[in-house]
Amino acid sequence: MSAQEVAQAFVQHYFTQRDANVDALASLYQPSSCMTFEGTMVQGGPAIVQKLKSVGPVKHQVKGMDVQPSTSSSAMLIFVTGSVSIGSDNPLHFCQMFQLVSTGPGAYYVHNDIFRLNYGL
Amino acid sequence: MSAQEVAQAFVQHYFTQRDANVDALASLYQPSSCMTFEGTMVQGGPAIVQKLKSVGPVKHQVKGMDVQPSTSSSAMLIFVTGSVSIGSDNPLHFCQMFQLVSTGPGAYYVHNDIFRLNYGL
Repeated sequence: MSAQEVAQAFVQHYFTQRDANVDALASLYQPSSCMTFEGTMVQGGPAIVQKLKSVGPVKHQVKGMDVQPSTSSSAMLIFVTGSVSIGSDNPLHFCQMFQLVSTGPGAYYVHNDIFRLNYGL
Repeated sequence: MSAQEVAQAFVQHYFTQRDANVDALASLYQPSSCMTFEGTMVQGGPAIVQKLKSVGPVKHQVKGMDVQPSTSSSAMLIFVTGSVSIGSDNPLHFCQMFQLVSTGPGAYYVHNDIFRLNYGL
């Protein structure tokens, strides 16, 4: 699979689970993995899922996805933009980046994850 | 300087020059550096500056900035959100990420740069 294909599969998996079954995301992270949500950073799968759960029910729509090779050939950066509805509120713009690191053929974990809403002009 | 301080200094420098003197940005990149602007990727300082110039005059307002350590201790990820006016149009949301890599004490170059506007709900 190309980096683009890996990224597309990851993004589809991530956002499907994010909206429907957030607990499933814990296994994507390692204890050293960082996730920053609206300026608050937590580390490791359990803490990351707990933080995401505190937001309540969400529904994402992905609009843009970019991929670049990172500093090592075993890592890639993925950049996602789109909209998210939190609870029953109107959708807001969001952007999110991930760094995926390979742990073996076809296997990756999320080393970095940063999420921001983008609202107010 | 802490990573947070480096990131703040970088972001202030980058966006000041981006809006006022885009040619000065070329020296932040190496030939292998990637910049993806609205889905189009170019490599190296001269091509990156050329791509940015093709957008015309811009004015950015930074609202959010997050920093995380990358996979190596000599690299950091910086995630920026805010608004940008392109020409005389109304401002739009943007988000942009950078990976800075150290080349020596207090010296960094931009290895990765991804920019997206976020509009339409």
